[in-house]
Amino acid sequence: MKTRRSDRLIDMTRYLLERPHTLVPLTFFSQRYESAKSSISEDLAIIRRTFKQRQTGILETVPGAAGGVRYIPMIGIDEANEFISEMAGRLADTDRLLPGGYVYLSDLLGTPEVLRQIGRLIATQYLDSRVDAVMTVATKGIPIAQSVSQYLNVPFVIVRRDSKVTEGSTVSVNYVSGSSDRVQKMELSKRSLRAGEGVLIVDDFMKGGGTVNGMKSLIEEFDAETVGVSVFAEGTFNGDHMVDDYTSLLKVDTVDGKEKSIHAAAGNYLQRNEDLLKELGN
Amino acid sequence: MKTRRSDRLIDMTRYLLERPHTLVPLTFFSQRYESAKSSISEDLAIIRRTFKQRQTGILETVPGAAGGVRYIPMIGIDEANEFISEMAGRLADTDRLLPGGYVYLSDLLGTPEVLRQIGRLIATQYLDSRVDAVMTVATKGIPIAQSVSQYLNVPFVIVRRDSKVTEGSTVSVNYVSGSSDRVQKMELSKRSLRAGEGVLIVDDFMKGGGTVNGMKSLIEEFDAETVGVSVFAEGTFNGDHMVDDYTSLLKVDTVDGKEKSIHAAAGNYLQRNEDLLKELGN
Repeated sequence: MKTRRSDRLIDMTRYLLERPHTLVPLTFFSQRYESAKSSISEDLAIIRRTFKQRQTGILETVPGAAGGVRYIPMIGIDEANEFISEMAGRLADTDRLLPGGYVYLSDLLGTPEVLRQIGRLIATQYLDSRVDAVMTVATKGIPIAQSVSQYLNVPFVIVRRDSKVTEGSTVSVNYVSGSSDRVQKMELSKRSLRAGEGVLIVDDFMKGGGTVNGMKSLIEEFDAETVGVSVFAEGTFNGDHMVDDYTSLLKVDTVDGKEKSIHAAAGNYLQRNEDLLKELGN
Repeated sequence: MKTRRSDRLIDMTRYLLERPHTLVPLTFFSQRYESAKSSISEDLAIIRRTFKQRQTGILETVPGAAGGVRYIPMIGIDEANEFISEMAGRLADTDRLLPGGYVYLSDLLGTPEVLRQIGRLIATQYLDSRVDAVMTVATKGIPIAQSVSQYLNVPFVIVRRDSKVTEGSTVSVNYVSGSSDRVQKMELSKRSLRAGEGVLIVDDFMKGGGTVNGMKSLIEEFDAETVGVSVFAEGTFNGDHMVDDYTSLLKVDTVDGKEKSIHAAAGNYLQRNEDLLKELGN
């Protein structure tokens, strides 16, 4: 059945949003809607304009016989600023302060709306990098990894601190947790990564960077490559950071003594990605 | 700036898809696009028709002053059938068989495309139920809980078998793992649930149902209510099931002896939800 432009625009928008970073040939749409390629091209030009104007992302055109369109999700500078300020406000609630100076984050990291924006923010940073997989460590990093993986449309893999019979053979490494100085073990199923793959490390919280460093060693064991490190929040740490090249959306400072206080501000994400985030608005 | 219909259709589609089960007042769209309510109503009628025709979901209209529109994601019978058959085919690969008759699922449960469909399938079942939170147990249930929570647009909470300093005070229960007959402990942060909430339990795999039963007791401890139980796959179990009211997308049968075999077929999901899934097509 031949379709009307309005129906095509709605269905194409849905189709593209569900498949970020995927090249869709024009012939696919042309067959799906029984419409001429020229009409499809016009439709895509309209979608491109609206996506740009509403800061949804970029609709990239790949010319030639093997070409098509590809939707690249992005976030604009205003929405990024707004989200980070809102999160800083929500983090700075003293009710979140747990014994030992830990911060309660599970409510935020279980809210679809929050995870969606975290995923968009982090995915925007790596839109031009070759990310084949997103890696995190169980448990609290998982929702972040899953959301980023959706926006980059690549699989995510979960490193574990405990051995599980449902993972099959694993590769393990020892690592030093910076904040406690203890040597611990982490492992990943052998089937999870292949040599040469580009891996993006994400986590909910980073203090000394020991856990992230462990994941980096694990990636080396697989002869894969660390593409980047992005965390939701970093905590203040009095000591040598084991990881220096990373971005954080937020920075949290806690005091858990006689006086309790929690201070949250923007991490280095906005500063590091300013030019990129402004690009979408231009 | 007054917008054209085509721009509105694209942006409204995106806006609605990102906010399932959320009532959006017509005045919101009318202001966002500086367009008359009558034009917005016509736009929504077009979106409603396309969503229905392409089996994306239902666009519900709530009349009156406090009214608006609400997008309810659904999956149609054909797409549900197709996805479950595809998964059964992928599960029945003997390479997935692990020592002890366990099945390797981490690749599937780390693939955005697969999680998206699992989320849509399970969310469709509960579109008319009052689900306030989705619950699962760490680690492998998390991606499923997150995906379902996206489509129902409610938070998800993670039960843990190990105690963590980052969860604050917890409520714990003991439970009997049906397959091993061991008594174990699981716990959930006190802040995760409130009395009276409706909770949907999801998990990746169920054998005897001991873990699911543990989650049910935990929900009782919070004076909350179990709305339903849905798992990705159920395994064959020679013994009394501890849970009888559940749905499974798949059913897996493994033999790990001298001869190794793995057999996968559709679970009871399709049969239980046939009428509901056919509704979208009508």
